[in-house]
Amino acid sequence: MSLIRRLNAESAQFDEELKSLLAYEASEDASIEAACAEILHRIQHTGDTALLEYTARFDHLTVQSAAQLEISRTELQAALDGLPTDQRRALEQAAERIRRYHEHQRTESWTYTEPDGTVLGQQVTPLDRVGLYVPGGKAAYPSSVLMNAVPAKVAGVAELVMVTPTPDGLRNPIVLAAAALGGVDRVFTIGGAQAVGALAYGTATIPAVDKIVGPGNAYVAAAKRRVFGVVGIDMIAGPSEILIICDGQTPADWIAMDLFSQAEHDELAQSILLCPDANFLNQVEQAIERLLPSMPRADIIRRSLADRGALIKVRDLDEACRISNHIAPEHLEVSVQDATSLLGKIRHAGAIFLGAYSSESLGDYCAGPNHVLPTSRTARFSSPLGVYDFQKRSSIIQISESGAQSLGPIAATLAKGEGLYAHAASAEFRLKLS
Amino acid sequence: MSLIRRLNAESAQFDEELKSLLAYEASEDASIEAACAEILHRIQHTGDTALLEYTARFDHLTVQSAAQLEISRTELQAALDGLPTDQRRALEQAAERIRRYHEHQRTESWTYTEPDGTVLGQQVTPLDRVGLYVPGGKAAYPSSVLMNAVPAKVAGVAELVMVTPTPDGLRNPIVLAAAALGGVDRVFTIGGAQAVGALAYGTATIPAVDKIVGPGNAYVAAAKRRVFGVVGIDMIAGPSEILIICDGQTPADWIAMDLFSQAEHDELAQSILLCPDANFLNQVEQAIERLLPSMPRADIIRRSLADRGALIKVRDLDEACRISNHIAPEHLEVSVQDATSLLGKIRHAGAIFLGAYSSESLGDYCAGPNHVLPTSRTARFSSPLGVYDFQKRSSIIQISESGAQSLGPIAATLAKGEGLYAHAASAEFRLKLS
Repeated sequence: MSLIRRLNAESAQFDEELKSLLAYEASEDASIEAACAEILHRIQHTGDTALLEYTARFDHLTVQSAAQLEISRTELQAALDGLPTDQRRALEQAAERIRRYHEHQRTESWTYTEPDGTVLGQQVTPLDRVGLYVPGGKAAYPSSVLMNAVPAKVAGVAELVMVTPTPDGLRNPIVLAAAALGGVDRVFTIGGAQAVGALAYGTATIPAVDKIVGPGNAYVAAAKRRVFGVVGIDMIAGPSEILIICDGQTPADWIAMDLFSQAEHDELAQSILLCPDANFLNQVEQAIERLLPSMPRADIIRRSLADRGALIKVRDLDEACRISNHIAPEHLEVSVQDATSLLGKIRHAGAIFLGAYSSESLGDYCAGPNHVLPTSRTARFSSPLGVYDFQKRSSIIQISESGAQSLGPIAATLAKGEGLYAHAASAEFRLKLS
Repeated sequence: MSLIRRLNAESAQFDEELKSLLAYEASEDASIEAACAEILHRIQHTGDTALLEYTARFDHLTVQSAAQLEISRTELQAALDGLPTDQRRALEQAAERIRRYHEHQRTESWTYTEPDGTVLGQQVTPLDRVGLYVPGGKAAYPSSVLMNAVPAKVAGVAELVMVTPTPDGLRNPIVLAAAALGGVDRVFTIGGAQAVGALAYGTATIPAVDKIVGPGNAYVAAAKRRVFGVVGIDMIAGPSEILIICDGQTPADWIAMDLFSQAEHDELAQSILLCPDANFLNQVEQAIERLLPSMPRADIIRRSLADRGALIKVRDLDEACRISNHIAPEHLEVSVQDATSLLGKIRHAGAIFLGAYSSESLGDYCAGPNHVLPTSRTARFSSPLGVYDFQKRSSIIQISESGAQSLGPIAATLAKGEGLYAHAASAEFRLKLS
């Protein structure tokens, strides 16, 4: 069996092949749903008691009181101070670049005044309190802590509450260091659906938040879906994806390694290359074969490329853009000469990496833009995580006495057309009887 | 029994009383859930066939082919041309004001260039195709058509597809006129979960959209929740709410009618008044008693005020703001002298109406801001419907050769810390071996 499938966009079966390549359905597991419903119900009604019990059962972490689940600011700072110099320096530089980029995203309040004195606009304010879920174990990524915490703080969120499970009491020092750098206000060593419930409903110890962000396993995702409405949530992420459009001028090894960098996340991750040059596709296939054995996560990469990867021959770069718009990839590398000229043809993508030097890995860690991106074609209607996810708007409507005279009859006419006579009367009461 | 409950914020039981006043839990109906799952499944797999069948069964509208479900642009224009002059004029003025306001909300693409030539930013683009659900029957509000359609068109959405059930073939001419004015591109006479499914998955006749917005009954809400992820959706609205903060200087009749204008929507709607002046609260209570009998929807208003309304005596306006921030109301009227001075104390509200002349009803129809607002305390984390709901962003990352040299080592260090060696190699491949 070959390492990765080869497709040709000009073949008669291509549409069907592409459809089956992209097919991915998030499965709903009834037993997970039932467990989450039960856990959330118990957290909502018995608070800390249930939280301690679940934490002992699922994380083998037993404490006498819920207060012991908190990690102090001093401990976070100690974790940062204890990092090897190069790691600390890299984390600081990444945090600084992420902060600088996200400062461009802050939305400001605005108003305008009409000739009759009526003022209209929007007041933009930060969320009061946000919960940040950080997975424990092998999926504990300090970069994710920064990518979630920094935009919240740039938005002006007053209190950022992080939760992260520490199975058997094992703490991840780089994650705690990232929390210190990211400006996280409080950290609790809880996880799973019980942590989501505690953040949504609040307990005597865990403060109730207004929104919960951050990745998690199937239980965390199911619990977030269930508390949506009580609190806000971010998108539920599907498997990670990269789509590369290449003109054949980038070194084949670079492209192969970029495909690997997506594939190494997860066997379900998807890596696709579109190129009009069949020879270059051959070179990339050879590079994959040559480079794969040396990769520490070769097994995951091999499985991901075989199951969900593809090298696709296209007629030209225009066709590549059309296919890319259909896929609406999470990450899109446009690895071509004069990449900017293609930008106007790209309609849907979470992040667009332009030019051969813009590898996705630079964006994942330290270019500045967020690495929390819409997956599974949702870039058609949603955006990277950003400062705007931690701000909300209130309409401002200040009608002048004169404005009420001109608007009142319009509102009354429309209200009567809808059979809403109190609406009409409320507008008409403000009319002067001159 | 009194018409509306009276509370005092200084009483010892107030916190409990407020909690029970605000208590509202959207119930999940298992039979609705099951019916929606079945309908969506059939629409996804048998398309137009299922759509025709459900439309005949639920709306008593039988047609030979799905194409007959479409209302042509000519018919929409005829509906507009057929309106009485005052209604047409009011609708046009409202549409124009809504358009003008929403033009302030358009987000533009932005980039910045770093000293080493690296370019970072975000490309902002409209959604390709949006579905707009408009309920049939008594809840068919032309103002809602404008409030949903205009921001989508201001955002630049290329194709806006409206669906609205026409039970027994009965069409609402004002709704069709509003569609013509709002720039709706196509209209289909379908409704319920089957219409949501058709928009989400597409059929031979109904084009698949990227996002579905607009209000609907319990079946529509349940179907929207189920297709979320395949397409984007707007918020699922709870009962409508108004909170009024008044200093006692506004005519009591105006305030009473403003409370009615919320209560007349629905027996579950909530109308609350906060005021430091007990005498004024008495006057409002008397006004309610006096004005109520003349209202066409008196029965709904009476039930809504008795079950969910309240006149609350507060110590002062600061306390009123604190209570308001806890409630995070959909509509907030700040009916006081110098209302602007309180604006900075308001943290959470869908729309803030400042001053005695700013009645909610003016905002509902024609002030300009959107009347689709977050309900049920969700203004803590969400915003009015706006142009931003019909645009999405893609990160732009163009790393220069020199930028790759400085960012590569940072990314590689962090990637290795996370055990992701292909990420590290992908960054390191771009380093010059000088």
